[in-house]
Amino acid sequence: MKKINIGLLGFGTVGQGVAKIIHEKGEQIKASTGCELEIKKVLVRNMDKERAVKLPKELFTTDAHLIPNDPQIDLVIEVTGDVELSYELMQIAFKNKKHVVTANKAVVSAYFEELSELAAENGVYFLYEASVGGGIPVLKPLKDIIKLNEVSRVRGILNGTCNYILTKMTAFGADYGEVLKEAQELGYAEADPSSDVEGTDTQRKLRILASLAFGAKVTEEDILCLGIDKLSAFDIEAMKERGKVVKLVGDAKEVEGGYEAIVQPVAVSAGSYFSSVNQAFNSVAVSSDMVGEVKFYGAGAGMLPTANAVLTDCLDVATEEQIIANPLRDRGMVCKTQELKGVFYVRTEEKTAALAALEGEAVASSPYAMITKPVALKELLELLSSDPAASIIRMEGEDY
Amino acid sequence: MKKINIGLLGFGTVGQGVAKIIHEKGEQIKASTGCELEIKKVLVRNMDKERAVKLPKELFTTDAHLIPNDPQIDLVIEVTGDVELSYELMQIAFKNKKHVVTANKAVVSAYFEELSELAAENGVYFLYEASVGGGIPVLKPLKDIIKLNEVSRVRGILNGTCNYILTKMTAFGADYGEVLKEAQELGYAEADPSSDVEGTDTQRKLRILASLAFGAKVTEEDILCLGIDKLSAFDIEAMKERGKVVKLVGDAKEVEGGYEAIVQPVAVSAGSYFSSVNQAFNSVAVSSDMVGEVKFYGAGAGMLPTANAVLTDCLDVATEEQIIANPLRDRGMVCKTQELKGVFYVRTEEKTAALAALEGEAVASSPYAMITKPVALKELLELLSSDPAASIIRMEGEDY
Repeated sequence: MKKINIGLLGFGTVGQGVAKIIHEKGEQIKASTGCELEIKKVLVRNMDKERAVKLPKELFTTDAHLIPNDPQIDLVIEVTGDVELSYELMQIAFKNKKHVVTANKAVVSAYFEELSELAAENGVYFLYEASVGGGIPVLKPLKDIIKLNEVSRVRGILNGTCNYILTKMTAFGADYGEVLKEAQELGYAEADPSSDVEGTDTQRKLRILASLAFGAKVTEEDILCLGIDKLSAFDIEAMKERGKVVKLVGDAKEVEGGYEAIVQPVAVSAGSYFSSVNQAFNSVAVSSDMVGEVKFYGAGAGMLPTANAVLTDCLDVATEEQIIANPLRDRGMVCKTQELKGVFYVRTEEKTAALAALEGEAVASSPYAMITKPVALKELLELLSSDPAASIIRMEGEDY
Repeated sequence: MKKINIGLLGFGTVGQGVAKIIHEKGEQIKASTGCELEIKKVLVRNMDKERAVKLPKELFTTDAHLIPNDPQIDLVIEVTGDVELSYELMQIAFKNKKHVVTANKAVVSAYFEELSELAAENGVYFLYEASVGGGIPVLKPLKDIIKLNEVSRVRGILNGTCNYILTKMTAFGADYGEVLKEAQELGYAEADPSSDVEGTDTQRKLRILASLAFGAKVTEEDILCLGIDKLSAFDIEAMKERGKVVKLVGDAKEVEGGYEAIVQPVAVSAGSYFSSVNQAFNSVAVSSDMVGEVKFYGAGAGMLPTANAVLTDCLDVATEEQIIANPLRDRGMVCKTQELKGVFYVRTEEKTAALAALEGEAVASSPYAMITKPVALKELLELLSSDPAASIIRMEGEDY
């Protein structure tokens, strides 16, 4: 029986989920893969904190450098949420020929090229299925798709907190602030929700998806990012009257001479696929030349779904499924996000002459709301820059 | 560069798609996997038939036994649609230590256990991603899920022809016969559509999915099968008035002491996930204890999507991703399909006293249509056995 010794960096929700599944499913794992996973060391900040999942206290350490340097460790699971320290620890682990599996989208997004290259150089695995779409198997199928396909678009509902808030706003006609408060009480949103509601979390996930899908270096800076924190009950209702449902979508697509990538509230038709993705669920859609469009749906977060994705990666390491190779390419695609055009719903305090000139369909006069003619988003954002409370929603057609 | 010599059994739509992708994507395949695929021999029935995709004539053979016995062939791709001959040829291939990849759900369903065992015994791959859900990556993710999860339910819209017909009936209020005729003209339905519209094709795919998912021997005989060929415009309209959309769903779920498995028209809520799966698209949903419910969506058929799935399997063989092992288990689950209960919409010529006693909600008096109280399906089918034109639709709640 092949045995994999694991060092766990972090013992929060996902780390505890990993320990719980290894404990409860150890026999099933042995039977289905012929491998045994054992947690040998766990990096924590506080040795004495009470945790829902118990491990023997001698496994814990507060010495961050112990695990990536420990010769008995084969595989490092990084689930800290931290960026700079975890980047350092992952580099050490790779240089010591340890495989790394992570759920940490922030560090993958920040150092995707560097980490992918270092892992391949050292002949070890670097897997991060849980960093996008939580429990949904999407990066492994995507890596299969890019072997044979040119991907022309990847888009998705990638943040459960935002989708939960938008679902409640749509169902109850409630305002953003109210629903956010309720979501925080229920644990669906963090005390500081900014990285979720401002779109940063979606931006990181889109950066990972688009870089893999296009074989291009699509960085966070290449992705225009608008959140859901400006949306009001009024906006959602105005869309509902037009048969539309609002979703925060990360969307990267190939265009003439390059690609456009944006995170933005999007109005999709009621009854469409994306309109059916509700609550904290996520979905990712990948369009490519041979296989057409495939979509993946499931729990985008949560202890067990995310830990399941982490452990599925660990079993790929154990059984050597997936090839050890840097999946990133650089086809030299040019970022054309600044040229992105569309039809937008806009709500703002004041109707300026410049805005009025863009009006395709009037929605309301107070607050002033309208749906534009086709316009460059950059131009629209400039016109709205004087109103910090203005909201913008991209209008999509039936086929979105 | 690793080279895989392929013998192709069958050169219909999927076989030609395989040849087309190998030809067009050969360089991409080499770059992304370090492997080269080459078609060495192709079994055809007619050497001289004109085909859309051209191959040198010397590759063709009409000798069925040549390819599985040819020492230069590493991998046999079986895309004939035939059952008995292809079973025989696959057995020979396995005994000659050749890997087999197939898109043929009929032969996988008929001899799933035998083929899986024989491949594992001979230490070669037996892969069949394209047999369920066409181009959708579903069996490979499912094999990952069952390493760590207990699957409690697997269900899906698995037949593109039926889904196309139902989508058109719903959109245009058209009758089954009309839409079938149009679907045949457009190539969405075969001249003899019986295996699609009577549910047999869905039954075979559910047999494959459920056997893998449950780790149990779920045969075609264990799956109750009702098609869409009795449905009328009247039925679809009656469901529409109740906010429901009709889909042909294959559904296998764990119940107390065993499992239930059925292929049947199901009324799902408008706006639900399954209601958004339209035209010839397919979707598969898998529910399990760690990861929750994940869903996969995409083209369930078509030359390039299906050939893409076949070639993705071939690349797994070439790069040795996936483990060589029999993924089937036999947990000895008992088939409880005969005990299946539910609430059903029923339309029949005559209102009998026995049927009237089951009535929960009256729908119409001529034709007689009603929605039952909760009832055993077997009992209902007996009551309706005297009316060959009677239609039955299972009513599902908001969470389906």
